[in-house]
Amino acid sequence: MATGARSRKLEIPGEEAQNIFTLKEMADGLRIRNFIDQNSPRQAVIIGAGYISLEVAEALWDRGVETTLLYRGKFPYSGLEPEVGPIIVKELEDHGVRYRGEVQPRFFEGDGKKARQLVTDQGSFPADLFFIGVGVLPNTEIAREAGIMIGKSGGIQVNSLMQTSDPLIWAAGDCCEKLHLVTGHPQLVPLGDVANKEGRVAGENAVGGRAEFHGIVGAASVKVFDLQIGMVGINEAQARKMGFPVITQVVEGTSRAAIFPGTRPNLLKIVADRSSGRLLGGNWVGWDGEAIKINTLAVAVHQKMTLEAISRLDLAYTPPFSPVWDPLLIAANLLKRQVGGNRREA
Amino acid sequence: MATGARSRKLEIPGEEAQNIFTLKEMADGLRIRNFIDQNSPRQAVIIGAGYISLEVAEALWDRGVETTLLYRGKFPYSGLEPEVGPIIVKELEDHGVRYRGEVQPRFFEGDGKKARQLVTDQGSFPADLFFIGVGVLPNTEIAREAGIMIGKSGGIQVNSLMQTSDPLIWAAGDCCEKLHLVTGHPQLVPLGDVANKEGRVAGENAVGGRAEFHGIVGAASVKVFDLQIGMVGINEAQARKMGFPVITQVVEGTSRAAIFPGTRPNLLKIVADRSSGRLLGGNWVGWDGEAIKINTLAVAVHQKMTLEAISRLDLAYTPPFSPVWDPLLIAANLLKRQVGGNRREA
Repeated sequence: MATGARSRKLEIPGEEAQNIFTLKEMADGLRIRNFIDQNSPRQAVIIGAGYISLEVAEALWDRGVETTLLYRGKFPYSGLEPEVGPIIVKELEDHGVRYRGEVQPRFFEGDGKKARQLVTDQGSFPADLFFIGVGVLPNTEIAREAGIMIGKSGGIQVNSLMQTSDPLIWAAGDCCEKLHLVTGHPQLVPLGDVANKEGRVAGENAVGGRAEFHGIVGAASVKVFDLQIGMVGINEAQARKMGFPVITQVVEGTSRAAIFPGTRPNLLKIVADRSSGRLLGGNWVGWDGEAIKINTLAVAVHQKMTLEAISRLDLAYTPPFSPVWDPLLIAANLLKRQVGGNRREA
Repeated sequence: MATGARSRKLEIPGEEAQNIFTLKEMADGLRIRNFIDQNSPRQAVIIGAGYISLEVAEALWDRGVETTLLYRGKFPYSGLEPEVGPIIVKELEDHGVRYRGEVQPRFFEGDGKKARQLVTDQGSFPADLFFIGVGVLPNTEIAREAGIMIGKSGGIQVNSLMQTSDPLIWAAGDCCEKLHLVTGHPQLVPLGDVANKEGRVAGENAVGGRAEFHGIVGAASVKVFDLQIGMVGINEAQARKMGFPVITQVVEGTSRAAIFPGTRPNLLKIVADRSSGRLLGGNWVGWDGEAIKINTLAVAVHQKMTLEAISRLDLAYTPPFSPVWDPLLIAANLLKRQVGGNRREA
């Protein structure tokens, strides 16, 4: 079963108008492109601020459409650290995309065929094109009808062999939940690389082989105009909610040796367990390689490395590509002093 | 003791001429710049092909000097895998820098003050400016006179506290040897980030603190014009020489999703121990982030990860910055099939 996922809807009145779009498949993208080609919209409103919405904002900007991005949360991209939020908003606004956080959509106003404005709790937003990017829902109807177990996340339950509750049925991709190795819980992670790995495992096992998919650490990256955002593990709020004694460190560093042309600022925040010193997650944002740099943390989180172990890493240094002290080493060196301490939670 | 290192010489006749340069300190760089400003050399010959020589080749190209690079080995940069060599040579030649490998310098010809040509076993190379970049030698004279132990590498012996054989004397930087965590042996690694870390440890301990420097894994990167070269651990030849049962994998991948604008080819080679499956090292070269990507391998080598563990990594995927299957995952997946096999060494 590789039934995938479908775009979530807002479930508000007027949502079926023909100038309101979602984007999950190639055909959705072509539909948006045709609409722009034929109608030359002047204004667009995007509802939602996940990576699809952020990428659509950039694509609309590229087509010269004046765009406003509305989101229910304070800052774009749910799951990122609050320190990262203002940096994303600035990147959007530097490119002429307006951002409004903490907005709840109520209904679309229009003639039924064509929506003219989105009415929200924060006023009305007129546009010629509306885009809804509020996540996806796993397609589990067939699985449910077949009596296959569905997890609390809403995705199909699978074991590490990608076997469902029916041992003769395997599943893979966005319709399944995945084991998060930091939280220890299954969750939905609709990402292409994860689906691809699961597909290989399910396929191999379905034809008599033996392969395993061992789970994820939440490694992801996204490009917002020139800004690169990398994330892995769990964030501070998630770690606190799970009951970890949390310590965090923010390092504002540079992407290259300070004297090297092209160096840009970046921001790294790491989250660790104060008792064990184990790294639980991190966000790294900047304009010069941070979407790649996050993989250094991805390995560290996967290996359950402590801050002490991370502070001992030997990383490649050369002025065009890194400062002499990598921000990750600075962060680990600073934060490891707090490990094992008995100070109270803030 | 932080006596550093000095540029090695060729120890051949004529080497003292005033148009022959080395580069170790700021003053050396200013001297070369002044010479170029005042003499507008047309032709330069570089002897040696380590990272300093390669960076000088780029700097001379930038100043419009016609440059030839000569090296004793077949391909530039000793210690890299032979698969990487032709890629570096092509990058040099694409920028108009001529490369000649397997050349042994014999003597400089000139009037004593000014060298006119370098005579080698492969003919004579005339130039207005000569640059010798054949590595550095640790400055250990003071240590020797003080009766401090010098290691086989030629550097000052230190323990993880950066303490010399005299427990009241600490040392740090290019004058010391460093423990290589893959080979288990001390060696010379004259790199700025390593020296910097050692200096902190030596300084802290010398004033009564307690810090440790735990060694290196040989992580390094270099920029050659637009090419990025990352390396870590030991290469295939070194691993064989040490007696490891060696397996290797080369993956020719792309830097981004194949459909994404700006994607470039890259080459990854990894080396592992066939018995244990442990990653021993890797080289990653390309034009789009490989100097940063090598840090993923640096953590893996540091953690003594096996190919099986590496193949389970969850790395960040987004089309502008990575292919859906990271070349490292492809390499680990392919190579892990050979682990534990009993095929004979080639």
